[in-house]
Amino acid sequence: MNENPLYRLLNPASIATVGAGNNFAKMGTMHAMSIIKDGYSGRFYPIHPRDDTVLGHAAFRTVQELPETPELAILIVPSNQVPGLLEDFGARGTKSAIIISGGFGEAGAEGERMQNKLNEISARYGIRFLGPNCMGIINTEISLNTTVIPYDLGPGSLGFASQSGTYVTQTIIYLGKRGIRFSKAISVGNSADIDIIDALEYLGSDAQTRAISLYIEGIRDIPRFVETARRITPLKPVLAQYVGGSAAGARASLSHTGTMAAPDHLYDGLFRQAGIIRVHTVADLYAFGHMLAVQPRLEGNRIGVVTNSGGPGSSIAHALDKGGLAVPEFSKALQQRLRELLPPHAPCKNPVDLTFHTDLEVLGVKIPGMVLASGEVDGIILHGVMSSGFTKALRPHLKGFIDGSMFDNFTDMMAGTSRKIVSFADSCTKPVAVSSFFDRDDDCTAMYEDHNVPVFDSPEKAANGMVCMLQHLRIRERKPWRPVTLPEPLKEAVELIGRSLSSGLMNLDEHDSKRFLGYYGIPVIEDTLVDSEGEIAGASRKIGFPLVVKASAPDILHKTGKGLIYLNQNSPEEASRSYRKIQEAAGRRVPVIMSRMVRGEREFAAGAVITAGFGPAVMFGLGGIFTEALGDAVFRPAPITADDGLEMIREIRARKLLGSFRGMPEVNIESLAGILHRLSIIPLLHPEVAAIDVN
Amino acid sequence: MNENPLYRLLNPASIATVGAGNNFAKMGTMHAMSIIKDGYSGRFYPIHPRDDTVLGHAAFRTVQELPETPELAILIVPSNQVPGLLEDFGARGTKSAIIISGGFGEAGAEGERMQNKLNEISARYGIRFLGPNCMGIINTEISLNTTVIPYDLGPGSLGFASQSGTYVTQTIIYLGKRGIRFSKAISVGNSADIDIIDALEYLGSDAQTRAISLYIEGIRDIPRFVETARRITPLKPVLAQYVGGSAAGARASLSHTGTMAAPDHLYDGLFRQAGIIRVHTVADLYAFGHMLAVQPRLEGNRIGVVTNSGGPGSSIAHALDKGGLAVPEFSKALQQRLRELLPPHAPCKNPVDLTFHTDLEVLGVKIPGMVLASGEVDGIILHGVMSSGFTKALRPHLKGFIDGSMFDNFTDMMAGTSRKIVSFADSCTKPVAVSSFFDRDDDCTAMYEDHNVPVFDSPEKAANGMVCMLQHLRIRERKPWRPVTLPEPLKEAVELIGRSLSSGLMNLDEHDSKRFLGYYGIPVIEDTLVDSEGEIAGASRKIGFPLVVKASAPDILHKTGKGLIYLNQNSPEEASRSYRKIQEAAGRRVPVIMSRMVRGEREFAAGAVITAGFGPAVMFGLGGIFTEALGDAVFRPAPITADDGLEMIREIRARKLLGSFRGMPEVNIESLAGILHRLSIIPLLHPEVAAIDVN
Repeated sequence: MNENPLYRLLNPASIATVGAGNNFAKMGTMHAMSIIKDGYSGRFYPIHPRDDTVLGHAAFRTVQELPETPELAILIVPSNQVPGLLEDFGARGTKSAIIISGGFGEAGAEGERMQNKLNEISARYGIRFLGPNCMGIINTEISLNTTVIPYDLGPGSLGFASQSGTYVTQTIIYLGKRGIRFSKAISVGNSADIDIIDALEYLGSDAQTRAISLYIEGIRDIPRFVETARRITPLKPVLAQYVGGSAAGARASLSHTGTMAAPDHLYDGLFRQAGIIRVHTVADLYAFGHMLAVQPRLEGNRIGVVTNSGGPGSSIAHALDKGGLAVPEFSKALQQRLRELLPPHAPCKNPVDLTFHTDLEVLGVKIPGMVLASGEVDGIILHGVMSSGFTKALRPHLKGFIDGSMFDNFTDMMAGTSRKIVSFADSCTKPVAVSSFFDRDDDCTAMYEDHNVPVFDSPEKAANGMVCMLQHLRIRERKPWRPVTLPEPLKEAVELIGRSLSSGLMNLDEHDSKRFLGYYGIPVIEDTLVDSEGEIAGASRKIGFPLVVKASAPDILHKTGKGLIYLNQNSPEEASRSYRKIQEAAGRRVPVIMSRMVRGEREFAAGAVITAGFGPAVMFGLGGIFTEALGDAVFRPAPITADDGLEMIREIRARKLLGSFRGMPEVNIESLAGILHRLSIIPLLHPEVAAIDVN
Repeated sequence: MNENPLYRLLNPASIATVGAGNNFAKMGTMHAMSIIKDGYSGRFYPIHPRDDTVLGHAAFRTVQELPETPELAILIVPSNQVPGLLEDFGARGTKSAIIISGGFGEAGAEGERMQNKLNEISARYGIRFLGPNCMGIINTEISLNTTVIPYDLGPGSLGFASQSGTYVTQTIIYLGKRGIRFSKAISVGNSADIDIIDALEYLGSDAQTRAISLYIEGIRDIPRFVETARRITPLKPVLAQYVGGSAAGARASLSHTGTMAAPDHLYDGLFRQAGIIRVHTVADLYAFGHMLAVQPRLEGNRIGVVTNSGGPGSSIAHALDKGGLAVPEFSKALQQRLRELLPPHAPCKNPVDLTFHTDLEVLGVKIPGMVLASGEVDGIILHGVMSSGFTKALRPHLKGFIDGSMFDNFTDMMAGTSRKIVSFADSCTKPVAVSSFFDRDDDCTAMYEDHNVPVFDSPEKAANGMVCMLQHLRIRERKPWRPVTLPEPLKEAVELIGRSLSSGLMNLDEHDSKRFLGYYGIPVIEDTLVDSEGEIAGASRKIGFPLVVKASAPDILHKTGKGLIYLNQNSPEEASRSYRKIQEAAGRRVPVIMSRMVRGEREFAAGAVITAGFGPAVMFGLGGIFTEALGDAVFRPAPITADDGLEMIREIRARKLLGSFRGMPEVNIESLAGILHRLSIIPLLHPEVAAIDVN
C-alpha cells in the first residue's frame, strides 16, 4: 500500500488517451506512440471523435463507451475541453489523470479559473492528476513512457522530477549518449494537484530509485517540502537545481508554469535545511544524480587519482581539493608497489600518472586495484582509459600503411582488455568515476556506461561528481531530525500584540519588542522605560555606566542622526541632559529607554522574516555595520530545531569569530542555536509578526 | 619580422625528426605521421639509424648527412640522447627544435642537470626549443601538426597554449565533436626555454588568432606575464585555467612538468591584474575561448533569450542574471510585434518561449531577427533549434507507420529551414550563442558549428559563455595601462634597513617600520619614541588624548595580552603608570612609543608579501579582527599602478564600507589606491623586505 497518488498514476493496468489520432505531426499522437511503442504491456484505449482505429488500436467515441474503467487517463486536447473530460473520467471511476494541455495557471486569469475548476472536479471524484501543462511520465520499471520522445534506454536508478517538461523529453537522446537512465521521470507542469513534493515523496519510497534529481522553479508548501526531504535525504541522495531566484528567472518561471519564486538565498537555506545537494546546471543535475544513483557510497574523504596524463591529473587533484576532498600522498610502501608497474620517472605519489602511452590493463585494472586494496583511499578517479576511440582517431593516418584486418585485430585485442577494465570497475565496492575525452564512440566509455560506471567528459566534472558524493556523506552524518512541535502561543505575547494592534500601531516600540522577545526566552539587553526627567537619576544608578538613553515610541524606528539617541552616558547629569534634548528633537513628549551600553567587537545578527512565495524564514549572520556591507548571512525556512540552528551558525563565512578569537572567549553556540530555534517559531505562533531583527 | 621564437618554430619550411621509424606503435612514428598526413607542404627529413626509408620518406643516418639545414628539428628519443642531438642540430645551423622526450626537469636531480645542459646548448647555438616533455604544436594556417593524434578540423581562430600536452592531443576528437578549431596550439611542456609567456605573446600578435586560452600549472616570470598579457587583453580576449593552487594540485604539477605553483588567491589576483578571464574547467577553457574567438564582440549587457521551452528559458535567464547580465523586459511595442508570430499564451516579455512544437523558422530566424533589430538587446541566446536530431529521435516510433521516403522528404524540408537559420545566425553583428541537447548528429547543430556559431550542450553553459563576453567587455573598458617605472630606492630607507641588518635584527621595530613606510609616503599614525618616564608628560600633551602607550623593541612584535600595550590613556598620570608597567612586564628597560588612539569602525588592511614561486604581491582587504575571520582580501603581483589599486579596492566584498556608510564619510579611495601603489614598489626597491603589514 502506497498512499502517494503517483504510485497508482505511474503503474496503471490500462490507459485511455484523448487527443491522439493518426496524424503523426500532432502532439497527442506522439504521446500515444510512446505508450504503444516503448514496451508498455497494459491495455490501451484511444478515444477519438471520428476514427475507428488510432495507431492500429480500436478507438472509442466517448469515455462512457470504453469497455472498462481505465486506470489512467491522458488528456492532450485544447484547454477548454479538459474540465469536461476530466469530469467524464471521474464519473467513470478513473482515479489518475495526466493533463498535458497548457493554457491554465500559466496563462492569465481565465486559465487560472479553469485550473481551479480542475481541482474542484478532482476533489469531487477523487481523481488525482498530474499537470496541466506537463509532459507526463516515464516509468522504466514497466516500460511506460507517456512523453513525446521515444525512451529506449532501459531501466535505471535515477529518479527525476521536474517543473520543466523539456527536461524529461528533449533530453532523452542527450541522456542516452551519456549512459544515464531514469528509474522514473515525472513532469509536474503547473502542479495544480500532484506537485513536486508528491514526486519527491514517491521517488523517496521507490525501491528502484537510488538517487533523486529535482528541477525546481518554485515550491508552494515549504514546510511540507522540508519534512518530506528530511525523511529521505539521510537515506537517499537528493539533488536540486533552482532557477527562480533572480528577477529574470522569476519572471520566466511565472510565465512558464505560473510558479511563484523566491530569492536565491532562501532556497539556498531551504536546500541545506532539507539535506539537498544544490547544483547549478541541468547537466550537473543529470550527471551527478546519475553518479550517486549507480555508484557505491563514499565513506570517507580520501580519493586516489590514476591518469595517463599529467594535465588531467593536476586538474582532478585541484578540483577535489577545492571541493573539500583529500588527495593523500600514498604511503612509501604503496608507492614502492606501484613503482614496479610504472615507467622509471612516472609520478606515483597520488595522482599516479602513467604518462601517455602504456598498457591499458595497468591503467584500468592493476594500478587502481592496488590503490583500492591498500585501504588508503575511499574512492578513485580514473582518466584516460580508452580503446577504440583512440584507434579510430588514428585510423586516417594509418590508412595506406596498415591494412584493415590488422586494425580489426588490434581493435579486438583492445576489446578484450576493455572487458577486464569494465568488470574491474564494476566490482569495486568504493565509488569510481571515470574522466575521458572519448564518448560512447569508444568501446571503453560505452562499456563503462553500460555497467553503471559514470564517465565524465572532462576531468574536473569527474572530481565534482566525487564532491557531490562527499556532500551526501556529510548529509548522512547529520543528527537525526525530528520535526519541530509548536507550543501554544504565550498569552502575554498575544496580549501585547493585541494591545498594539488595537491602538492602530504597525510596529511594537523598542521596549515592547524587547518584552515580547523576552517572553520567548530571547535574551535582550534589559532596559528601563522612563517617562519623566525625575526618574533618570535613580534609573541610571540601577543600570550602571556607561549607558544609553534613547527615545521610545512605535513611530520612531531609526534614531541615529536625529538627536534621539545618546550613547556613552557616564553620569546621571549627562543622562538628564540627553533626556531633555530628546524631548526637544522629538518635538513632543516621548518616553525614553535607558540601558547599559554594550559594545562587543563581534556582533552577530539574527532575525525572522516573511517572504511572499516562501513564508517565514530565520536568519543568522554577522551583525553591526557588516550585516549590510558583507551580506554574510544564512537563512532557513522556519521553524528550525536547535540542531538546525547549530548548522546555520557554522555556515557563516565569519564563523572563525565564534571560537575563542584574539583573547575574546568562545561564543556559546549551543545557547545561540537555542535562540535561533525560539526565534524561528515566533512567526508561526504569531502570524501578525512580519519581521524581527535582533542584533 | 617577429622576434618571438615561436614564429619561426611554427612556420618551418623543412622539418627533421629523430625517433620516428616504421613501427606504428611507437610515439615517434605517430608524431611523424601527423606531419606527413595532415597536409604540411614543407620538406620532411626523418633521421633513422638503420632504415633507408621512414613512412615512405628517404631517411638519413645523422644530422650531418641531411641534404639541407632543417628549419625545425623534432626529437623523440630517450632523454640521454637529446643533448647530443640538440648540439648536432645547433652546429648544423637549425634555429628551432621541439623536444618531445620526457625525463628532464620533472624527473629529479639528474633530469634537471640534463635540462640545464639543453639550455646551455641552446644559448651557445641560438637554437630555441619547445619542451622537453611536450607534445609539440599544431599550426592550422599551414596544416602542420606535430602531435600524436590526427588534426583534420581545419583552420580556426582559437589560439591555445598549454602546460599539459594532453590538452592539445587527447582532446582533438572531443573538439571536433563540438565544432572547436584551433588557430595554433602549443604544448610547452617543461618550458626549459620557450615558455607559456612566449606562447601568449606569439598568439597575441598572430592575426589568425582571435582569442587565446591558456592551461597553466605555474608561471615562472610573473612580471613578464603581466606585461605581456596587459598589452594583449584590451584587444584580444585571453582565458586561463590554473590548477596549481591547492596542495594536491601543486604536488601534481611539480611532478608533471617540474612547475612551482603558488596559492590560488595569488593567481586570482594575477589574472585580474593581467585582464585574463579565469575559468575552472578545461571544458570551459575550450568552449568559452571558442565563443570569444568566433563571435562578434558584446557591446552592452542586455541579452535576449528565445526558446522553444520554458525550463531552458528560466535556466538561461537565471544564469545570465547571476553572471551580471540583464534580461530586460521587452518594450510593449516589441512584445506586440512578437505576439503576432506566437501562439496566444506564449510568453514574449523576454525570455520569448515559443512552447514545444512550432515553426523552426520562427524560432531560429523571425523572432531573433525581430529582437535583434529592435536594438533592445546586445546579444541573443537561442535554445531548441533542432532538425534531423529530432526526426531521428522519433524514427523508432514512426517506423512501420510512415515509410522511409516520407521521412526523407520531411528531413529535406527541414534541411532547407536549417540553412536559413544558420545563414541568419551567421549574419548577426551581435553575439549569438545556441543551446541544444542535440549534438552534431543534428543538422542544425552541425551547420551552426561549421559556421562559427557556438552550440552549448546545456542552457546554463550558453549563458555562461555570454558572461565571459561581458567579462571581456569590462576588460576592454579598463583604463589604458602603462608599466610601473620604479624610482631609485630612497637613501634614508636603504640606510635604515642597513642599520637594522648590521645590528643583526630580522625585523624593524614598530617605530622604525613607521619611519620606513613614511619615507615612501605611506601614512602612519605619528608616534613619539620615549625613553624615560620624565618625557611622558610632555609627549602626551603634544599628542593629545586618548592615547596609546606601547613597548618598542624589534624582538617584540605581538604585544597584546603581555602587558606591553595600554590603550585609551586619558591623562599624563595614567600614561606614566603604564610606562612603569611596561618596564616591569618586559623585565628590562625598553623604550615605549606613544601615539594618538585612533579607532575607526571601518578598518582596512594593506600589505606586501613575498611568496616562493610567485614573488612580491600587494594585498588589500578588510582589517581589524575581520582580516583573519573573513579572508576578505584581494591580491596583485607587485608592482601595481594606482589604477590597479583602485580596481583592487573595488573588488573586496566589503566594498560597501568604502562609500559613505551609516553616517561615516566616504573613504578617499584615490588616496588609498596611491598608497597601494607605493606599498607595491617597496619590495622591489628593497629586496630585503619580506613582508609589510599596514592596518
